[in-house]
Amino acid sequence: MNKADSFQNLINQKIGKINFDKSPRELYDPMKYALTMGGKRIRPLFTLLACDMFGKDFQKAIPVALAIEVFHNFTLIHDDIMDVAPLRRGKETVYKKWNPNIGILSGDAMLSKAFELLLDSDESKLKPLVQLLSKVAIEVCEGQQLDMNYEHSELVTIPEYLEMIRLKTAVLAGSALLAGAIVADASAQDQHEIYKFGENLGIAFQLKDDILDVFGDETKFGKKNGGDIVAKKKTYLYLKAHELAKGKILNSLTYYFVNSTFDDEAKINEVSAIYKQLNVKEAAEEQIEIYYQKALAHFANINLPDENKKDLLEVASNLMEREN
Amino acid sequence: MNKADSFQNLINQKIGKINFDKSPRELYDPMKYALTMGGKRIRPLFTLLACDMFGKDFQKAIPVALAIEVFHNFTLIHDDIMDVAPLRRGKETVYKKWNPNIGILSGDAMLSKAFELLLDSDESKLKPLVQLLSKVAIEVCEGQQLDMNYEHSELVTIPEYLEMIRLKTAVLAGSALLAGAIVADASAQDQHEIYKFGENLGIAFQLKDDILDVFGDETKFGKKNGGDIVAKKKTYLYLKAHELAKGKILNSLTYYFVNSTFDDEAKINEVSAIYKQLNVKEAAEEQIEIYYQKALAHFANINLPDENKKDLLEVASNLMEREN
Repeated sequence: MNKADSFQNLINQKIGKINFDKSPRELYDPMKYALTMGGKRIRPLFTLLACDMFGKDFQKAIPVALAIEVFHNFTLIHDDIMDVAPLRRGKETVYKKWNPNIGILSGDAMLSKAFELLLDSDESKLKPLVQLLSKVAIEVCEGQQLDMNYEHSELVTIPEYLEMIRLKTAVLAGSALLAGAIVADASAQDQHEIYKFGENLGIAFQLKDDILDVFGDETKFGKKNGGDIVAKKKTYLYLKAHELAKGKILNSLTYYFVNSTFDDEAKINEVSAIYKQLNVKEAAEEQIEIYYQKALAHFANINLPDENKKDLLEVASNLMEREN
Repeated sequence: MNKADSFQNLINQKIGKINFDKSPRELYDPMKYALTMGGKRIRPLFTLLACDMFGKDFQKAIPVALAIEVFHNFTLIHDDIMDVAPLRRGKETVYKKWNPNIGILSGDAMLSKAFELLLDSDESKLKPLVQLLSKVAIEVCEGQQLDMNYEHSELVTIPEYLEMIRLKTAVLAGSALLAGAIVADASAQDQHEIYKFGENLGIAFQLKDDILDVFGDETKFGKKNGGDIVAKKKTYLYLKAHELAKGKILNSLTYYFVNSTFDDEAKINEVSAIYKQLNVKEAAEEQIEIYYQKALAHFANINLPDENKKDLLEVASNLMEREN
């Protein structure tokens, strides 16, 4: 088993040991459900790999790794309420399985729990870790608010979209890595570089997600293609298509995208045909490559031998090549 | 101006200085609105008075006092969504003025902000304060969940109700005082006593609220009486009446309480007439006196001269005699 796999196993084991067998059950059962319904554990894996890379015992980073995973799952519970999303990872979302109030409240308790988990870190690291978690928590809220704003706004520019996904997704990837670097006493410069590595990787990751949603292999991706089109999400693909389209194609794109009376399948077919015609998948792939190269440049700046860096680099490269 | 008034002014001033002029406005405007729409600032006042009482410069306790007030207002925003409450302190609630999603998200950001505010405390105090805030945050969630459970449960006992208000309301009063004692390096014994003082006072305070809701002077209380009856809240008054009522009165109480087709005013009149007939107000007042005396006994155990204790004692006694 390679290092990443063994770290992921360890994270799952540790998450399983958080005590949720408490009263009232209506509060704790959803927390347990959300945390054990799957998920790739990428963020806590980042934390442990970063700590290990800088030569510190990864055990020291377990509390903050768990805090970040619990925090991440809190955001999913609340996002699913706001997005009225009935399914996640093929299972019922918390608000759907219970109700929205229980979703709100168990999410609140999970956010508080994330901060509580930090207390198991060495006391000398508590201040920077509380700083990190509170900062990223507020940024993720900003990103989610922008996402909600953009649902209702006619015109969203590509730079606005990229800033939104930076806040909503990428800063947490950067912070997960930074957390490991903090625990490992990495230099300020290396902390900066690993954060920027994660942030750029996070943006690339989200753009990849946009592509997979429309063009992914359904058998590998595990869900039907075109969810973003049906949900009228203004993804990179849509915004790029909107930028490139002219005349009849633009009318057609706007028509299919805005019109609710359409059959889902017809809509997905028509919109993805336009995407293909305008080569927006290729445009997105170019963007991904730009962000991935930026990420790698920051990674190269980290003052460590290549040997130390290889595990994390492999995980990053797998994420970029993933098909689900 | 007495000490409590000058502390309250200071708190309002400091809250006014938290920077909410940030983007996106849809996230930060509700936070500012919630924090500046009034409120008695009792909890942060407790924190400053406790710190001062133990002989430490109260300025040291300002960060945690603000954290507790921001936390408290987060709970109000989310509770109002869950309770579908359109008004608070005579003004539109956040979810009503904006929408539920904005209420969820600005509340989340406020909870995160509360932890961030702790970072301005002396670093030596950060660990116990993060411990305190995360613990009380989870307890308040437990209390709110019990409150929601009890809305739908046929039979709620008085001990269950008291435990619910302890978690939902009283632990935060105790924690606010404990926070000040922690900052002031009070002994473990004194920390325990001041926490228990606040907890018992908090229960008495909530029972007083139950009475004021039905029997308060409307001109002083600033809202119409009987809100809890209309909302079918199983308050102490209701549960006690339910315990004492027999035969026709019990039928009548259950009928008016459960039936939705009734005119609000008729319902309030009938139910409060039953409350009067069964002397449940007096029973509640007895309970309040029991909890208040318990609080005072813990307060008396605090190892300080009476001179130090008088400001906090005066605030507590005013709270017990309040008519609004």
